[in-house]
Amino acid sequence: MRVAVLGCGVVGTEVVRLLTTQASDLAARVGASLELVGIAVRDTSIERDPVVDRALLTEDAEGLVERADVVVEVMGGIEPARTLLLRAIEHGAAVVTANKALLAQDGPTLYAAADAAGVDLYFEAAVAGAIPIVRPVRESLVGDRVQRVLGIVNGTTNYVLDKMSTEGLDLDAAVKEAQALGYAEADPTADVEGYDAAAKAAILASLAFHTRVSIDDVDREGISGITADDVVWAERTGYAIKLLAIAERSDQGVQVRVHPALVPLTHPLAGVRGAYNAVFVEAEAAGELMFYGRGAGGAPTASAVLGDVVSVARHRVLGGKGPVESSYAALPVLPASAARTRYQVRIDVDDRPGVLATVAAVFATHGVSIEAMRQAPAPLGPDGVGFARLILTTHQASEEALSATVAAVADLDAVRRVISVLRVEGA
Amino acid sequence: MRVAVLGCGVVGTEVVRLLTTQASDLAARVGASLELVGIAVRDTSIERDPVVDRALLTEDAEGLVERADVVVEVMGGIEPARTLLLRAIEHGAAVVTANKALLAQDGPTLYAAADAAGVDLYFEAAVAGAIPIVRPVRESLVGDRVQRVLGIVNGTTNYVLDKMSTEGLDLDAAVKEAQALGYAEADPTADVEGYDAAAKAAILASLAFHTRVSIDDVDREGISGITADDVVWAERTGYAIKLLAIAERSDQGVQVRVHPALVPLTHPLAGVRGAYNAVFVEAEAAGELMFYGRGAGGAPTASAVLGDVVSVARHRVLGGKGPVESSYAALPVLPASAARTRYQVRIDVDDRPGVLATVAAVFATHGVSIEAMRQAPAPLGPDGVGFARLILTTHQASEEALSATVAAVADLDAVRRVISVLRVEGA
Repeated sequence: MRVAVLGCGVVGTEVVRLLTTQASDLAARVGASLELVGIAVRDTSIERDPVVDRALLTEDAEGLVERADVVVEVMGGIEPARTLLLRAIEHGAAVVTANKALLAQDGPTLYAAADAAGVDLYFEAAVAGAIPIVRPVRESLVGDRVQRVLGIVNGTTNYVLDKMSTEGLDLDAAVKEAQALGYAEADPTADVEGYDAAAKAAILASLAFHTRVSIDDVDREGISGITADDVVWAERTGYAIKLLAIAERSDQGVQVRVHPALVPLTHPLAGVRGAYNAVFVEAEAAGELMFYGRGAGGAPTASAVLGDVVSVARHRVLGGKGPVESSYAALPVLPASAARTRYQVRIDVDDRPGVLATVAAVFATHGVSIEAMRQAPAPLGPDGVGFARLILTTHQASEEALSATVAAVADLDAVRRVISVLRVEGA
Repeated sequence: MRVAVLGCGVVGTEVVRLLTTQASDLAARVGASLELVGIAVRDTSIERDPVVDRALLTEDAEGLVERADVVVEVMGGIEPARTLLLRAIEHGAAVVTANKALLAQDGPTLYAAADAAGVDLYFEAAVAGAIPIVRPVRESLVGDRVQRVLGIVNGTTNYVLDKMSTEGLDLDAAVKEAQALGYAEADPTADVEGYDAAAKAAILASLAFHTRVSIDDVDREGISGITADDVVWAERTGYAIKLLAIAERSDQGVQVRVHPALVPLTHPLAGVRGAYNAVFVEAEAAGELMFYGRGAGGAPTASAVLGDVVSVARHRVLGGKGPVESSYAALPVLPASAARTRYQVRIDVDDRPGVLATVAAVFATHGVSIEAMRQAPAPLGPDGVGFARLILTTHQASEEALSATVAAVADLDAVRRVISVLRVEGA
């Protein structure tokens, strides 16, 4: 069984390491030996990990995919990955990819090509690294009806938020620390602004609901608006702030979004620390499930890739084929405004009688029901005058109603400032 | 596609409900409609849930399995389940079973029969109910090297230990509460004494290490020796007590055991509450993974069963076959005495100078290294004389060395009583 690897970065190197060091175990599990026939790179001349046999390196990726039975794509990015995978499929190779961006943007094209060629397209590593989540959702839960997926699927932002919480850092300092440890890129935009999480949300939603969701369908908000103060107050009120990828199904369709949210400290997702990932799934019969582990990194991602390689290679040996795209449900994708969530609103108000009632009245007028209201001692304002900090938690409300409420509250004379508006999820 | 269900208890009823109410979704996912052709029961005359079409009930299980393409076994017990499954396989049906006892005792016979007949044998529901763990271990982690599995795989005992912790109940009272809620059987032996967990441990170990482990290979100790006092002291020293199923691989072979253990409160398994299950997996490349969800109950177990039904039915439609038994590694199964773990030992000693040093010397003599030692205030002894309570936590030690140490400590004049010896896991 000839295996080609496209890309030899952190993940590619670990894929090569596993293929090399575990060759005899892999052969026993597949029923045939896996021969690494080439590793496509942009530049064969640069220094590599000693596990990488330099004789296997090639800059001719197009030629390589034509000589393989299984093509592993761990180069990332849209092109040339897309063209190479389509070419591999045309040549009858099974493909394994970790490329979330490509799948979230153009998955159906790849699915259709693989289906037409009768080859496998596997991508466990594209969502949440080492955590088996694609296979469980595509296969284990296929007899159930998934209602909701809540995921911490970006380790960088989880690390950043965790540092803000445990060490009181502000966002910039925490991002710098993540960069120093290699958790964040030099340009952290894709992580911090939620693009990476949005790609994974689109893939998970497509699988969970048997429908097509592309990254363009995902409402996205990153963590760049989160302050150290938000994190402190979240904890004081019993929550952790997490960047969540959320996919929900209702009678009207599916709604998919990425945003920071308050998660109750008692919820299993609140305990997910550091660069770990976790995906929480609610299904009609199964109830609540959670999948937890390392969402990134060379070796963890390579583990997921190799699991797929063994699966597709087994199909070549024993016959059969893995699941194809399941998009029969063809559900409408709803805008973020269709989502009803709970909110926590923090505002600074004048510290005098009657203010609380006035604020509550504005919420009532807009039909937003308050679940809890708490008045907390606050430091003196910039003008040296005492003020009070109100923390209001609402019942489920539409984004529209909540925005109108907040705008009206901000206009009140007694309100100095709306500090933050955050969604509450998982409660 | 003709589906037969053997057994119509809590799980069987929910399997029938899903097959009936989700028929159109299931047909779309399989690519063929699933027709429920019969439900084998012991007594067709008793009252059933209205979802069960009485016309499908039959007491002729042997006849039923001969008319099905997919046989779902949710009756439990060794016989007649074993004979019926073998007959179904002989007749060319794919089989899906939730029967952990049967698989842990006689899995290889079923595997061999299914392999010879070229049919699928799936059993996701046999371990940890709704939690996808069989498929992830058999397929997602197949390119990796699993080193250790730590599982809370019995919801009844987890509920009991949780109640002892949160409500200060003693074991008997907590078991009675579990019985009242339907979490524990009238005879709770299989759960409380760890037999159920041992069956699951055997199955998980076989899958994770590509070797054969039967329930007879599992060292088993239940929770009947755990006192309310043990639970209180565990928490005071930073641990939760959990009944763990543990499978470990070393250079010498595999060691599989079930026993109560102290788990650090910071470990993800410590937060698994109530009747929930969780399986923690350590793999060489993937690192730490955890799978969490409902480990029992009709609907959750039925979700896992239906996932398998769709998988095996798809193979009938699209061709192919799921994984067969992988036992090529043929590893020796090591006795419990081969396991090296950390221990926490609590003893009551005379409250006078020098005792602590004497006790420590006994540990040193036996080569058991102490990691932490703590002296706690204790109530007056039965004789009204003051004593001190020592809590010692060791580094990794063999069971043999630890037992010899404890015996020698118990013989010291200054030692009144060895209160408890518990293993520490997950640290």
